[in-house]
Parts: sequence; C-alpha cells; structure tokens
Amino acid sequence: MAERSLSALIVVDPANLYYLTGYNAWSFYTPQCVIVPADGPCHLFSRYMDAQGAQHTAYLPPEHIHGYPDYLVHRADMHPFDWIAGTALEIGLLPDTSDAHIALEMDAHFFSPRGFLAIQGQLTHASLVDSHELVNWVRVIKSEREQAKLRSAGQIAQRVMEIAIEQIIPGRRQCDVVAEIQHAQALGSQYLGGDYPAIVPMLPTGITSGTPHLTWSDLPLLTGEATTIEIAGVHQRYHAPLARTVALGTPPNRLRTVADAVSEGMAAALEQMRPGSTGRDVHWAFARTIGRYGLEKESRIGYSIGIGYPPDWGERTMSIRPEEETVIEAGMAFHIILGMWMDGWGYETSESLLVTSEGAEQLTNVPRGLTVKE
Amino acid sequence: MAERSLSALIVVDPANLYYLTGYNAWSFYTPQCVIVPADGPCHLFSRYMDAQGAQHTAYLPPEHIHGYPDYLVHRADMHPFDWIAGTALEIGLLPDTSDAHIALEMDAHFFSPRGFLAIQGQLTHASLVDSHELVNWVRVIKSEREQAKLRSAGQIAQRVMEIAIEQIIPGRRQCDVVAEIQHAQALGSQYLGGDYPAIVPMLPTGITSGTPHLTWSDLPLLTGEATTIEIAGVHQRYHAPLARTVALGTPPNRLRTVADAVSEGMAAALEQMRPGSTGRDVHWAFARTIGRYGLEKESRIGYSIGIGYPPDWGERTMSIRPEEETVIEAGMAFHIILGMWMDGWGYETSESLLVTSEGAEQLTNVPRGLTVKE
Repeated sequence: MAERSLSALIVVDPANLYYLTGYNAWSFYTPQCVIVPADGPCHLFSRYMDAQGAQHTAYLPPEHIHGYPDYLVHRADMHPFDWIAGTALEIGLLPDTSDAHIALEMDAHFFSPRGFLAIQGQLTHASLVDSHELVNWVRVIKSEREQAKLRSAGQIAQRVMEIAIEQIIPGRRQCDVVAEIQHAQALGSQYLGGDYPAIVPMLPTGITSGTPHLTWSDLPLLTGEATTIEIAGVHQRYHAPLARTVALGTPPNRLRTVADAVSEGMAAALEQMRPGSTGRDVHWAFARTIGRYGLEKESRIGYSIGIGYPPDWGERTMSIRPEEETVIEAGMAFHIILGMWMDGWGYETSESLLVTSEGAEQLTNVPRGLTVKE
Repeated sequence: MAERSLSALIVVDPANLYYLTGYNAWSFYTPQCVIVPADGPCHLFSRYMDAQGAQHTAYLPPEHIHGYPDYLVHRADMHPFDWIAGTALEIGLLPDTSDAHIALEMDAHFFSPRGFLAIQGQLTHASLVDSHELVNWVRVIKSEREQAKLRSAGQIAQRVMEIAIEQIIPGRRQCDVVAEIQHAQALGSQYLGGDYPAIVPMLPTGITSGTPHLTWSDLPLLTGEATTIEIAGVHQRYHAPLARTVALGTPPNRLRTVADAVSEGMAAALEQMRPGSTGRDVHWAFARTIGRYGLEKESRIGYSIGIGYPPDWGERTMSIRPEEETVIEAGMAFHIILGMWMDGWGYETSESLLVTSEGAEQLTNVPRGLTVKE
C-alpha cells in the first residue's frame, strides 16, 4: 500500500477477509468489507446480524466491527455501501481530504456496480483506484502454517477422490455418487474436519464430458461412457482440488491415447514447476509434450490456489499459460488441471501441489491416468 | 422492457440465466451474461470452454451461444466484458444508435465494477440504466411446473432436516453431522435427485448460536448446548429452505420461552400469508404476537424464494418487513425465517411455503418447536 501511496484499501473478497482478519461466515451474499487504513488497524463492516458472528471468528476487537441496519438489505432506494463509506468517513477510518487515494477490489466477486457507485457517491473528494488484487497477490506465498493446512486439505482430497472413483458404477445415479463425495468432503478424516469446497462436485459424464463445469443430474451412469470428476478436499478454507476420469467399460482408443499423452504432459509440467521457472515455462513443458501427439489445449493449464470461497477456489493471480511471466517461488501452490474437452467426449486429470525449494510437492497421491472399470 | 422503453437487457444473475434459457453450470466465477434484445431471441455469452456446455443445457440454438477466448480470464489489461459488449454490438444484438437504452443488473452477484466499466467503455453512445431486478420480479409468480419443483424440493428438505435432527448427538463432531446432511441433500429420494443448495448447511452451536450464517467446525457437540440448523432441499435449482433448533440436555427456560413465543408468531404470520396481504401485514402479525412476550426482532422475517444459485437462495425481491407494500398473490413462494439471536444464545425456526388461493401451503412438515434431546 505504501509503494502505491494508498491512503486505504477496501477489501470485499471473502478469501481476503479471512486472510486479513480470520472472519469466516456465509455472509458474503450481502455487502461486507474490511477497510485497511494506511496506518492503524483494520475495521470490518457487515450486516448487523453478521457483525455479531464476526466477534466469534475475526481477530478484531469489538469496537472495530461495525454492523449496518437490516433495513438496508435489498432496497432500491439505498445501499449498504452508502452506510459503510459514510460511517468509515465519520470515524476517520477513510480520510476526508482531497489527496485521499483509496483502492477498491474492482473485479472481486460480491462487489457490485451499485456498491461501487455508492462508495463513489460518498467519496467524491477522493481518487478511487483498482487494487489489482493486491491482497490476493500477498496471499501467493504460503507460510509454514498455511502449507500445513494445504497438506491437510490434500489428505482429505485424496480420500474423497478414492471414494468417488469407487462409487462410479453402472446404473448408479449421478446424484448418489455426489452424495458420497459430499459426505466424504465434510467428514474429512478422524483428526481433520472437512470444510465446504468453493465449488460443488462437478461430474460431467458421457456426451457432456466434452465440457467442464457441469454439476450433476439424477440420471444413471452408463457402461460405455466416461465420467470426469472434479472435487476438492478442504481444511479450514484451504483447498486441494483434484480431477480424474473414469471409464465404464472398454474405453475408445482416442480416450486412451489422450490420457497417455496428458500423463506425459503432466509429468513434464511438474518437472518444470520449481523456483525460478515461470508459468510460461510450465505451460510450454506441457504444450510441447502433448504437441508431439498432435494435441493442443486452448485454455490455461493451472492457477494459484490457497484459501477459497464460492464461487472459485483459484486465487485469481497467477495462471499457468503462455502470457504468465511471474517467477515461481517456494511457498506458492498451484492446481494444474489438464482438461481436454473434445466434441462429445473429454478427459480431465489434475494435481494440486506446493512449490518447495526441491520442486513440486504433490498434495495427493492418486494414480494419475485414466481409471478403467471393465 | 417495453414499459421501460428498454432496447436491451444484460442479465448476469445465474438464476435469471437459468430462468430465461435453462443454462445451468458452475461457470459464474468468470463473466457471463444473457443479452435480451427488445425484439428477437436471447443470446448467451460465456467463457469459450463453457459455451460448449451451454449447448447441453440452454434452450438456445448454437449460433446464439458465444464463447470468449480463454486469454481474457484474470487479466489486468483486458476484461471479458470488453469482448462481450463489443461482439454484441458487432452482431447487431445491441443497438449502436444514440437512443439505445440498455438495462444492467447493477446489484447482481458476479457483476463487478470492472465488468460494468468495460461495458460502459464499449457503449459510450448508449444510456445505461439499472434493471432494478426486472427478471427477478418476473420470477416472483411461479407457474404450475415451478410449483411442482418447489414441492419436490420441500420433500427433500423434510427428509434432510429429519436426518439432521437425528444426527445431533453429544460428542459428534459438527462436520460429521454436516456429512450426513450433505449426503441427504444430494441423494434426494428414490424418485427425485437432490441438487446443490445455494448455501451450505449452517450449524451455529453453543455460544455461536447467537448469530446466523456460521457454517461448521470439527468441534464436538456438547450436552447443555443448543444447535440451530439451516438447510435447504433442492430439486433442479428450486429451493425449499428450512431451519430448526435442537437442544442437547435440558434447555434453559429462556430458550423454551422464546421458542414458544416464536411458534405462536409463526402461526400468526402463516395465517396472514394469503393473497391480498402485504409483507408488512405478515410482519406485523408476527411482531404483534411476539411483542406480547416482550420480544422483538430487528431483521426481516422472510423473503421470496424459487431458483437459487450460490451465494443466496433468496430471490432478492420481496422481503417480509414493515417497509414491504407489494401485494401477495397466489403462486408466490416465501421462506419465513424466525431467527432470534441473543447474546451468546439463539433460536431459529422457519417454514418454506407456497401461496395458493387458499393461503399458505407449507412445503415441509417437520414439528415446528424446539427439539429437546434430554
């Protein structure tokens, strides 16, 4: 903030709120934020009923937690951010001078244009700038304690995926498989409770496996079809995502060929994933390898992970793609996701990993290739 | 749209996308929208990889589905909404004349200030106005088929809550209870698959039951403490939310007293919930009843329900509160949620209901008062 001469930063991303203050609740469907002044402690602003909950989870003294009245919720004529910005000015948390330089998370989920215009209306004296995901970028290098949480999440992810693969059986409804997945996600293990994932289990199957991000239906799984499974293990909001593909019955050769090429590509990407490399290097290691099999992938092959809240477990910072020049450092964590979406069929496999001085440490250990159930 | 002289409407709320086109995927973490011109069919815009999935779920011909390239994702220097607005202009879906009058969902989740500014940059010739949740308001009255889906959601909610109450046992970890809840939510019933809820199970317990919206931990449930459970049954995105409170061991008198007063208040509110009443009337029926016991509740006591996507299962239209003057009609659906959050303890109970010409039809049938497990 000092480097950018910011007087204050208004943070709305729930993952950033959790990172900065420990605040953790399903309250992000109404406006809330943490205001970080250039000097002095953070203040949290939320709906009145949630301000009470914040006392239990945020590492903030009660006088730094402010609740706006309930009549501001879902009103056409007023907006909670009028109240929030007004109150922050009143208590001197935001400067009222014309040199005020205030950063906002302009592309965060749960920060609406109306919220932005309300803040702008209250802060006409100030210059408002985009934070460009400042807090997200600070989160990129994980502390020892954060790394431990990611490893715990990995343990849960591994168990969840083992159960998911076991449950892919001809005739079983997709929703029945998801029931077992969600059960395992919450259960965690005997010593580690599971937390909710930022994304529900995704289970494109048969013809829909040619596309990502479909959830599930109550139709039965069929012999002759492949199912891609994308889940995460989560511990205290830290995510280890994981994807695999299961074929019921003898898979077509094209699927086996793609799976083998992608396994080789994953090995090449992981080998390249070490301090000093860039996302571009890692992407190239993968692209070059699958290129030898005549394959290419249009989309990015991975992104930074850590704390996640719905709707995304990515950190919204680094992507593994040709345009990414940020140098990889120890303490970063990534989800490398290799989704090959073809016309009416597809293949997905992924690994979550922590970068150490030695290279890529996998957070899970599940056989990587296509699982075939004859 | 004609009444408001709109040339076009840009819709971003995932529930509105589903309502208008059937599009259903976990793709709302990157920008997407449906553009509704004043005359002519809708077009869907999403990330390239999701445009393929849209072919499977949206009732739109392939040429009305447009995918933006993956390099636009999470970039500081360009935004998907630049591409979307530019393409929509190019194909004549948005008018390029100076009398263009285009409505945006200015307070929707997943529509960021950067997205708004990108659209504004492309549409400098047009006047941009707030849609004021136009599609949400259209959704308020449910068709016969929608009512059937809500009843199915209610069947699932009832089963989920029965299991949840059964699972509240001293010594059990909170996450173990949630595992059973999530299992039941996905399973649905033998004939009705469960879908994911817009909000994960919320389980404030002990001292934290004095606040809503806390999720769960891996700490064990304790005798002498009360737990509030808030869940939903979901069928094909239609939600029937439900809340109950379970006391382990003999509850304190204050909890019993509040529970009894609130049950009476619920009965009064449901009695008042009929065509011709307003949200104000229903609120007053409740407030007057609990007022006789010296109680009051600051926040709204309910809201309109139907289709839901994370992070909210409310429709963001009507609220049951003193300021609500919209007249209630048959075909509307509401979640009446009576959360009494006290200092270090609390009580919650709720009902989901459909308004018919006869009055309020409950979507579930679970005993309403405090459940005590001695």
